Formats: sequence, structure tokens, C-alpha cells
Amino acid sequence: MPIIYVSLRKGTPVAYRKAIAQGIQRAMISTLRIPDDDYFQVTHELEPENMIYDRNFFGVARGDNAVFVQLFFNHRPADLKKALFAAIADNLVRDPGLKREDIFMSIVETAFENWWAQGRAVNPETGTDSRMRS
Amino acid sequence: MPIIYVSLRKGTPVAYRKAIAQGIQRAMISTLRIPDDDYFQVTHELEPENMIYDRNFFGVARGDNAVFVQLFFNHRPADLKKALFAAIADNLVRDPGLKREDIFMSIVETAFENWWAQGRAVNPETGTDSRMRS
Amino acid sequence: MPIIYVSLRKGTPVAYRKAIAQGIQRAMISTLRIPDDDYFQVTHELEPENMIYDRNFFGVARGDNAVFVQLFFNHRPADLKKALFAAIADNLVRDPGLKREDIFMSIVETAFENWWAQGRAVNPETGTDSRMRS
Repeated sequence: MPIIYVSLRKGTPVAYRKAIAQGIQRAMISTLRIPDDDYFQVTHELEPENMIYDRNFFGVARGDNAVFVQLFFNHRPADLKKALFAAIADNLVRDPGLKREDIFMSIVETAFENWWAQGRAVNPETGTDSRMRS
Repeated sequence: MPIIYVSLRKGTPVAYRKAIAQGIQRAMISTLRIPDDDYFQVTHELEPENMIYDRNFFGVARGDNAVFVQLFFNHRPADLKKALFAAIADNLVRDPGLKREDIFMSIVETAFENWWAQGRAVNPETGTDSRMRS
Repeated sequence: MPIIYVSLRKGTPVAYRKAIAQGIQRAMISTLRIPDDDYFQVTHELEPENMIYDRNFFGVARGDNAVFVQLFFNHRPADLKKALFAAIADNLVRDPGLKREDIFMSIVETAFENWWAQGRAVNPETGTDSRMRS
């Protein structure tokens, strides 16, 4: 039961934002192996001046259409998080066609008991979603 | 000194959003025993397409008026967080009358020294708000 | 590669919001010694009723123009975070002239591997930005 925030510039089509959401979610499913319906995202559309970043971060030219992705979920091993970043970037470059250098991602990890939804069952041994594939 | 983000669909009355804010805060006070004035919330009103979740999460029918609640505060024991989730859900079902299945909550915990406000005093032994009831 | 969220009341000039962003960033650079271009912020402009706080928190009169600053970055020692809070508050009081009592700040720390941008190089020993000054 992750929660993901996407921040981007105001004025993009619904289909564009949907492609971003789905690209992130597909990467979450394939990499972290979460259930398909474990899909929680909020997209913030911002005025240009309210989304601030250096256009030359690390000496790489960045465009005006950056997308910030912040993911909150339970603790995962470093290699899995690395694979997730790569899968999200690949998906978003493919659709909606983001430039790889305009994607910025970060993760915040929490304790497994920090999630609540009515009807959500947890594995009594691991505390995580009872449907998680191992 | 928590900070809480509430995300919901654009177009609800002020009184509705206020009931949500107060329901969460009352649960924080009764469960975590924080002072009454330790009340910091931001409500994000979103276009329907910018708030994404599966309408059948865990096989339970979810409506269009989901509310995501994300709470940031110092580390707490698991049983206290569980009680907090239950108290918030109960309060929001009562007023403004949310369906329990449309409430989704998560917590992010921080170190106790990660908070700042002018005039805030901390207990030198615990590092937490000096007025916290034990 | 931090990410910082600023929440404030809708209706302030661009220059006002820019002064806040730059004041925070200058404090990040001087205190945490991050590179100048390591600058990632999102500003949320909110309706008054969507930004909730007690006007008498800790017995100090708070105004209507509070600014919530939430900073996400890698773990830092407590004394460094304390210095950062002080530097941000000093900068924002100077420009754009915020009242010190209207500034509220919090930090969320993450593992060092929780960040991704194309072209970002990390120090193989520390896992942090390869350009970080010691």
C-alpha cells in the first residue's frame, strides 16, 4: 500500500499524466511485486515558478518539463530500489516520452505497520500485504 | 508537532474539509495525547484524474470520494499507531460521514529533533514537546 | 539531492515565493554543504482554509501568513539539523521578511540510496552525491 506523489508543470493532457501514473505503477508491480490494485497516487500540477530545480543539475541539461516522483513504501533492499528507479525511468521515457534527464525520483521508507485501509489483510508473520508475492 | 496532509477530490464544502481536519486532530489528541494546539494540516484538493486508486482495492468496493491521509510525526509504538488509525476512521465515518472503505491512511515517522517552531520548548530528556502528557 | 515542500497561503507574489525558496536553499548550501545546483523544491499555494494551524501554538501569537517547510534528505546529525533550522529561519526573516513565529519546519530523513537522477554520480564509499564537500 504505497503512496506516490507526482509533481509536474500545469497544463499537460490527462492522457500524459495517466501514462506517467501507469508507468510508475507497472514498475512497482514488476519490481516490488506488489498486487495490481495496490495503486495509490496523487498528481500535483504546479505553476512553473512553483517547481524549482537547476536546469544544469550535475552538468546535465534539464528541460522545463521535469517530473518529480516521490514514493512512500515499506523498507526494501537497496538493489530492489535501484531496479525500481531504472524500471520507472524506462517506462516514462517510453510513454509519455519523457526525457530521461527530466525525471527526478526519491523514496521514503516506513515501518510496515504504518498503513491502513478498510479490508486490508496483512500477513501475520511479515506485517505486509497478505497477497504479496514472495 | 506533527504535519498531516489530506488529499481529496476538489469541490467539497469548507465544512466538510473542516470536519475531516478536526476528526483527525481529535484522534491525534485522544490517542497520541498531543497538546490541543499541536495542530498542523494541509489539505490538497485535486482534480479527479489526479487522485488515483483502484476502485476494488482488496476486493472492497471503493467510491469516488476517497480521502488519503498522510501523517508525519515522531516514532510511536505499533499499537499506538493502530489505535490512531482506528480513532481517525471512526471520527471520519461519524463526521463528515465518510464511508470507512474510502479512507486510506499512512504514517511517516521521524527523529524527534526534526521539528522546529519559534517558541517551541522540548523536554531535555526526551527531546519531544515539553507539554506532552505521559 | 533533497526535495523540499513549501506550503503557504495563495496570493503571494512570485518574488516573495522565490525569496523563500532561495533562502531555504542558501541555508542548505551553507549548513549541509550541498552543491549549489542540488536545488529541488515544490511550492504549494493553498486556500486559507486548507492550511490549518493554531494561531496560539505554544502560547505564541501566529499570523495568517504561516509558511510550512518540509525537507526530505539523507540522515544528518542532530546538531547539523538544528543549525539548518536556525539558518533557514534567519534567512526567511531577512527576506522576504517573514515573522519568525510564522515559520514551521520539519525534516524527513531517508537512506542515501533513495535518490535518482540521470547523470547523478555517487561516492562509492558513502553512497552520497560525489561532489559533496566534507
